[in-house]
Formats: sequence, structure tokens, C-alpha cells
Amino acid sequence: MSDGPEVKAAAPHIDGLLETSLYVADLDRAAAFYERVLGLGVMLRSPRLVALDAGRQGVLLLFLAGATSADVVEAGGTIPGHEGTGRLHMAFAVQDLDAWRARLAEAGVALTGEMAWPRGGTSLYFSDPDGHVIELATPGLWPNR
Amino acid sequence: MSDGPEVKAAAPHIDGLLETSLYVADLDRAAAFYERVLGLGVMLRSPRLVALDAGRQGVLLLFLAGATSADVVEAGGTIPGHEGTGRLHMAFAVQDLDAWRARLAEAGVALTGEMAWPRGGTSLYFSDPDGHVIELATPGLWPNR
Repeated sequence: MSDGPEVKAAAPHIDGLLETSLYVADLDRAAAFYERVLGLGVMLRSPRLVALDAGRQGVLLLFLAGATSADVVEAGGTIPGHEGTGRLHMAFAVQDLDAWRARLAEAGVALTGEMAWPRGGTSLYFSDPDGHVIELATPGLWPNR
Repeated sequence: MSDGPEVKAAAPHIDGLLETSLYVADLDRAAAFYERVLGLGVMLRSPRLVALDAGRQGVLLLFLAGATSADVVEAGGTIPGHEGTGRLHMAFAVQDLDAWRARLAEAGVALTGEMAWPRGGTSLYFSDPDGHVIELATPGLWPNR
């Protein structure tokens, strides 16, 4: 089914998601939204990128749209270029959905959707300033949490 | 700096990243790549979506490009539509970079970049079948890991 040589051994271990990326029109505006509404802390701020602590080992990368298409070559090596457009989707793991419901209301952030999942767990959805589709989900949605 | 009401209390806790999304031209091809090369297990397979276990609580969502723009209304609620184009970027947390280097070589996957980070940690980069820019990173890159 997949192109490429068959590999017989098990893959080395993966320790979960580390980074997810969104592309934004205004880095300051986007970062301020995630700081103010979700309480995420800024770990790095550069002209092309803001990195936010998404809890545990997770990092939400906000890239300035149009500024990341070229490879970046630095002393330590090469970072391949990337870019994206559209209303992208990512989700944060949370526990207390009522607390988040109150928080979003207080922050003036409208819900764009809500889903009670067949397996368990509930998700709230809202849009960030660039229209990205952000989800907060309680445990039970997926078998690995 | 951020639009919207000021919120005085601390935000409720966020337990890290839950889902990151990529948009792909062929769900079977993309899922097979992540199964074969990275060893990720499929948790859900539908005509518009494959969900892969990315380790710990993490989920890599592969969405069929062009099939997710409309809201989904089901018994449990509403999932807002979303969509994306371009070479998106995400990263997995790993420990043993040499093992991954060998794995990617064995699987016939070429490295597109590599970076030894100032804080510590090293990243390997490669492209998935849709050209998305995938990273494997060892601890030290960010202060929260």
C-alpha cells in the first residue's frame, strides 16, 4: 500500500506530539490571543515565529504567513521551508469543560461548535483571530487518552 | 494588545497538545506512510479522515483535502468546517535520533534537513507523501521538555 521499502522491525519509540503549527497574518495579534484567552506562555518570539507553551511537552508554533517558505540555513543546520493557508485545525487536551466554557465567555470568544463524542469526552470549538479552528477536548474522545 | 475583554483570573489548565492536522490527497497513501515509516497505529478510518496514535495522548489527524470545509452536524453536536493547503509543519517528540536515522534510511525516506539547536536537542526533517514537513526532535529544543 505504501510506496518504499518494507521495514520489518518495529519503529523506534515516539513520545507524542511536540509541535503543531498555524500560519497567521499578525504575530503579535495571534500571540496575544493565545496568551490572553488560553493563558499560554511565550517561549520564543522572533520576526517569523512565536512559540507558545501548550502544556506538558507541547508547543504551538505561530508562523508569520508568507515568511517561512524558504529553507533556513544556520550554524546548526538546515530547517526546510514550509507554508500553509486556510482555516487549519488543532486541539488542546483539557479537563474541566465548564471552566473553559466560562473562560471563553468571559474573554468574549464565541463558540463555533460543540460535540459530545460517541466514545466519551466533549469538545468545544472556537476561532482564533486568523480563523483557525481551535478545539478544547476532555478525555475519552480517543482510545489513547 | 489583544482584542476582546481583559480576563483577570488565570486560565483553566491545559494538558498539552491533543490533535494536529494535515490535509492529504490520498488518505490510504498517507496513512500507510505513517504506519510503515513511523509505526503509528490507526485509531479511526473514515472516508474523510484517518486518526493515528502519535504517542501519549497525541493524535495525528489526516484529512482528505477538500472534504472538510463544511460544518459536520451529527447527533452529538456540530464540528466546524476547516481546510488547509500547502506544505504544513508538525513535529514528533523522540529520544533516540540514531535509531530514527537508521529507520528512515531503511524505509527509503530521505532527510530534507537537520538542525542541532542552540538550547540542545537535534531535529531531523523529512517530507511525507503530500510534501508536509515532518520533524523528529530530541529533548532540549524547548524549555518545556
